[in-house]
Amino acid sequence: MSAEQFRAYGKQVVDWIADYLAGIESYPVRAPVHPGDIRARLPSSAPEHGEPWDRIQADVDRVIMPGVTHWQHPGFFAYFPANASGPAILGELLSAGLGAQGMLWETGPACTELESVVVDWLAELLGLPAWWRTDGPGGGVIQDSASSAALVALVAALWRAGRVDAGRTACTVYVSAQTHSSMAKAARIAGVTTSNLRTVDVDPDTLAMRPEHLEELVAADVAAGAVPTMVCATIGTTSTTAIDPVGALGEVCRRHGVWLHVDAAYAGVAAVCPELRWINDGAAEYADSYVTDPHKWLLTNFDCSVLWVADREPLVEALSILPEYLRNPATDSGEVIDYRDWQVPLGRRFRALKLWMVMRWYGAEGLRSHVRRCVELAGELARLAGSDDGFTVYEHHPFGLVCFRPIWPGTAEAAADEATAELLRRLNDSGAVYLSHTTVAGRTVLRFAVGSPATGSEHVRAAWQRVVAEYRAMRPGVSG
Amino acid sequence: MSAEQFRAYGKQVVDWIADYLAGIESYPVRAPVHPGDIRARLPSSAPEHGEPWDRIQADVDRVIMPGVTHWQHPGFFAYFPANASGPAILGELLSAGLGAQGMLWETGPACTELESVVVDWLAELLGLPAWWRTDGPGGGVIQDSASSAALVALVAALWRAGRVDAGRTACTVYVSAQTHSSMAKAARIAGVTTSNLRTVDVDPDTLAMRPEHLEELVAADVAAGAVPTMVCATIGTTSTTAIDPVGALGEVCRRHGVWLHVDAAYAGVAAVCPELRWINDGAAEYADSYVTDPHKWLLTNFDCSVLWVADREPLVEALSILPEYLRNPATDSGEVIDYRDWQVPLGRRFRALKLWMVMRWYGAEGLRSHVRRCVELAGELARLAGSDDGFTVYEHHPFGLVCFRPIWPGTAEAAADEATAELLRRLNDSGAVYLSHTTVAGRTVLRFAVGSPATGSEHVRAAWQRVVAEYRAMRPGVSG
Repeated sequence: MSAEQFRAYGKQVVDWIADYLAGIESYPVRAPVHPGDIRARLPSSAPEHGEPWDRIQADVDRVIMPGVTHWQHPGFFAYFPANASGPAILGELLSAGLGAQGMLWETGPACTELESVVVDWLAELLGLPAWWRTDGPGGGVIQDSASSAALVALVAALWRAGRVDAGRTACTVYVSAQTHSSMAKAARIAGVTTSNLRTVDVDPDTLAMRPEHLEELVAADVAAGAVPTMVCATIGTTSTTAIDPVGALGEVCRRHGVWLHVDAAYAGVAAVCPELRWINDGAAEYADSYVTDPHKWLLTNFDCSVLWVADREPLVEALSILPEYLRNPATDSGEVIDYRDWQVPLGRRFRALKLWMVMRWYGAEGLRSHVRRCVELAGELARLAGSDDGFTVYEHHPFGLVCFRPIWPGTAEAAADEATAELLRRLNDSGAVYLSHTTVAGRTVLRFAVGSPATGSEHVRAAWQRVVAEYRAMRPGVSG
Repeated sequence: MSAEQFRAYGKQVVDWIADYLAGIESYPVRAPVHPGDIRARLPSSAPEHGEPWDRIQADVDRVIMPGVTHWQHPGFFAYFPANASGPAILGELLSAGLGAQGMLWETGPACTELESVVVDWLAELLGLPAWWRTDGPGGGVIQDSASSAALVALVAALWRAGRVDAGRTACTVYVSAQTHSSMAKAARIAGVTTSNLRTVDVDPDTLAMRPEHLEELVAADVAAGAVPTMVCATIGTTSTTAIDPVGALGEVCRRHGVWLHVDAAYAGVAAVCPELRWINDGAAEYADSYVTDPHKWLLTNFDCSVLWVADREPLVEALSILPEYLRNPATDSGEVIDYRDWQVPLGRRFRALKLWMVMRWYGAEGLRSHVRRCVELAGELARLAGSDDGFTVYEHHPFGLVCFRPIWPGTAEAAADEATAELLRRLNDSGAVYLSHTTVAGRTVLRFAVGSPATGSEHVRAAWQRVVAEYRAMRPGVSG
């Protein structure tokens, strides 16, 4: 494709995206397709001859769009948001247009240094400590996801525990039942056995990890000759945005020399607002690694997960292998960061561009205002649900997520949970909204996560009206 | 940023990229900057207030571009190529514009099914076996890199060996000194100790792994009670594009029940050409996993690495952890692929779009013609170098890479290697070309990898003239 063809088709695609964003509400939020529907629309082999661009673009509408679930739709309240925004899309476009690959400083000096600068900027905006900055002993890096960040943090912890090149059967990792499954996945990949993945009790009300129980478990493991390697504390769990007591857990970690990883994947970015900075209490003092995802709630297209370490030596020592064909004068000088040594893959895209463009376009005040708006909308939903006696609302909703469940009087718990699941199916089948669910204290609970920049108060209210309408349709005896 | 602002700024960025691609030869290939130069141009904090787009875009030119190494430059001959192309850039743009996240089939039915279809298309184009197709017992998946593919393949191999949830100190992995460092990195991450990473001898001429030595090593390990877990065979090593005898190695693997991973990251895509399909001999019969990177040499922007497995069960069983908040009817039905279970991260971009657009725009014949053109240009370079008695050319260059070294008569080997390194520094400092190096049989050797769609015969000849000119400048006694 020549530069002039790219110029013409590129503008067509830009127009298509602008039209898509302007008209996104005309689509059902969740793709109304069945398994195999999209595959059935596609030929079984690649074309032998090249095709004109217009035919390809027409097939985006004809073949692809019916199978797209619209994460940027204002009615998307499922899981956690995966924010996109204009400046982030343009950052991705520019990155793709440059086609640079920043595995080493030498192969992408701007890719490397801009990344260091924007993660330093972000650390400052979130009130994270100065020594996590890349010009200090620690440093930040963009990963594809908090899952990958958890894995490399665990490998760094294993290095510090002397186990990166030794048997790991003695190593123990501490999570709670609320910790994201990516930590268990990281442990499995790294060879920490399931039987050595310790589940710390949580407070039944707050769902936060109990430091006393962590202390008990660690002490028992030490006494038994195990090697307590990592504790994963969460700021904003995936299920309910519960917040573990990082400081108290960190005390236990420090006492026993255990690596403290803080998973703030969703909620960490909320600390751009000074009034929410308390969520990071204890992290500065105790965290060895900390991850938050601008690609969830900070207007930056997936993938953009930022991992900081308080000391970069264990991470780099654990992951660095330097074959001859990657040696170069800049690396040999020791004066540069080669981000390949901070991650699983070797190659890397120029992801810093999109985060830089987001931070510049919105400014710190724009980012704060986005987070505040979502928190307010979540509060509005909680008030609506709380004032309807058909629903029980979980009172903890400091961020954009509200958990609630419908009440099914006279129905046994299992049947009530099934009715809640049926309500969820009806809501999601409607195409107007998309919610997800979780389990709290053994009960099925609906999750309503406000996070899209397109979502306004009118969408939250309309979504709530739909929840109520479907609920009442399922309980014909209840009046409207 | 509103849809209308995006429409306007998006077209500016498209124009910028079209101008960049049209004028790329005006830039020095490798960024002529020193460590810290780009950081020094950037403010130390994020802006408080949002900034206008034009200022951000102007800073791309002012701040970023001086630090960009131009991987798409026709004078880029270093490492391996990281092909970009118009349709791939537009695929990335569309993916970013949709902002969809396909961790589960349900959260991205088109994202999931298009991915299955395009990797099936690619398997067919490369002559890979039908049972690797996603509608068979195996299946393909897009990873970010061959490094991540090696890691998940190893975890699958550990699962099959009964060691995914057990101690791994008995597990052994077999590579050669020519195997990419990502395999050693994967082993380190997964807890296979360095002392259990066996180095199989290579033939001193072909640099290909010796199956007899593999047999010896495996048999000795079995006798000693070890658990031989994975052999990594390479089709097109990074250093010199050496080709391991996959069939003969596979025989050893089959005899001992060892997982055979085939790393064809760079060269595998060359099998789009029937005349190069021999490179995959043995893979269909013996490989348990096979990876090749369209993002290297098949016109598809990084990241797009395709991993196939002959049987998907070990991979999915090893990596699947299903918390309540990710459960959904489609997953429960067992009728769909959830690609989160095929990779380290949970989230995923809609990367299939770019590969689909590349395959449709170029067609199979366009992909073949791209590969053939690069092979021909590499042949041209080899002829030029081979006809100059100042250079020794390595005769093995079936793909786009040619290795050669200058001859420094009357110079001891160490000094000659240093002179070769100095020649490389001078070439790369010139800004006209960018080459990299490796070591073969203990000697420093230059690598000249032809792969950019922008590179033509005139660029190869000009690059060679520059090599000769710098060489002669360093050997003033030699006439031109």
